[in-house]
Amino acid sequence: MNAMQLFAVPDLPAVQPGDDIAALIVDKLAAAGAALQAGDILVIAQKIVSKAEGRLVRLADVQPGEQARSLADVVGKEPAVIQVVLDDSNEILRVRRGLLVVEQRSGWVCANAGVDRSNVQADGESEYLALLPADADASAAALRARLAELTGVAPAVIINDSHGRAWRIGTVGVAIGCAGLPPIWNQRGLHDLFGYELVSSEECIADELAAAASLIMGQSNEGRPVIVIRGYAPPDLPPAPARTIQRPAAMDTFR
Amino acid sequence: MNAMQLFAVPDLPAVQPGDDIAALIVDKLAAAGAALQAGDILVIAQKIVSKAEGRLVRLADVQPGEQARSLADVVGKEPAVIQVVLDDSNEILRVRRGLLVVEQRSGWVCANAGVDRSNVQADGESEYLALLPADADASAAALRARLAELTGVAPAVIINDSHGRAWRIGTVGVAIGCAGLPPIWNQRGLHDLFGYELVSSEECIADELAAAASLIMGQSNEGRPVIVIRGYAPPDLPPAPARTIQRPAAMDTFR
Repeated sequence: MNAMQLFAVPDLPAVQPGDDIAALIVDKLAAAGAALQAGDILVIAQKIVSKAEGRLVRLADVQPGEQARSLADVVGKEPAVIQVVLDDSNEILRVRRGLLVVEQRSGWVCANAGVDRSNVQADGESEYLALLPADADASAAALRARLAELTGVAPAVIINDSHGRAWRIGTVGVAIGCAGLPPIWNQRGLHDLFGYELVSSEECIADELAAAASLIMGQSNEGRPVIVIRGYAPPDLPPAPARTIQRPAAMDTFR
Repeated sequence: MNAMQLFAVPDLPAVQPGDDIAALIVDKLAAAGAALQAGDILVIAQKIVSKAEGRLVRLADVQPGEQARSLADVVGKEPAVIQVVLDDSNEILRVRRGLLVVEQRSGWVCANAGVDRSNVQADGESEYLALLPADADASAAALRARLAELTGVAPAVIINDSHGRAWRIGTVGVAIGCAGLPPIWNQRGLHDLFGYELVSSEECIADELAAAASLIMGQSNEGRPVIVIRGYAPPDLPPAPARTIQRPAAMDTFR
């Protein structure tokens, strides 16, 4: 495997609650004279999955509690937004002006529990926030099954989001949902060119695929929320969900 | 920019101290009937840059001090290896069995200061460790200048390494050297599809490019240490070195 290509599914419309994303993908590929092929990997932006699944909260309906109001003062965001973040979080990890890092309900350590108002359509009266999918691994598996039903091809599916990092500026695409491929390439027991065992070599290929796709999506997902990756052959390991990427808290020395 | 492709420069030999990596790349591309094109981005594995620059330490020459011997007991590595890590570090951040996270001399927060014995050739008598390049941004700039001299095309150059993350299992490719492109796409002031300002959107495209290339390199760099990325148009921002990705310690709440 010495080459791969990535391309965006063209002309996808703004996704609405209830939309069949798999059908949209198949239709828009067909309209462009393209089709899914065996071995393709689809990377799908979290935001459109959340929207299709109706994971939206109307800000005007949110009653911020005392903790949210107090945190809002520190962070410098609206109390109602903070309340939505808290409602979808297991634990607050760091708070600072402009920064609220939590363990989101599904276990992801990220800013603002992945809650975002950008690219969420207002209804003219109020604003909505999009939460992460309730179970992005299940979402990925369902999208994969639906694509297989529609096309006979079962591509691997990654749902990606943009996360910040502890020691590096800027976000990168990461996988929060995965179906049909091994997210982590455990190379323990493999040997390098000179025979040394690669004892501590685990590569998170799902995150690398998610990051590669983010380059074409653009962070504001300017109409390119679905990327096809073609030519990448994952290692021959059992598929696993993205939650296996989460470092157990007991092994995490940076909380 | 709706598509991009990545391919490995074929048939590169094992790099030796003093080798002209840029000339090797140009030669091997030409032998395969290929050539650099305007807009190409080259991602080059740190290990071959370190080897070409002779950033090698002979283990048998290392006298581990008291701190190294004491840390070696905790971490479970050879004291001489720990000494080499300490010698190339500014600060020790976390220590645990199997884990030594430091701020490496160039400012990168990573395990073992990026020091690695894998893929470093033994001379039959002793083993060598490879350090990170002394200044990987300068290395990237020099490789870019040399490629321009040889071909008339000045590709952007990223030097990548594989780093672990605080909260996620597995390494991903990241940029430790960069020349000819903006590592961070600051999207502040841009607006999303519905007019919301992307107030906290900084995307580290250099790390995403580094991660994408890692997928083809394979982590043991099985003869594919140089990847050409074609078709990706970086944002129209001034180029900057990779060290601008480092989060200043004062802004780092996870040390």
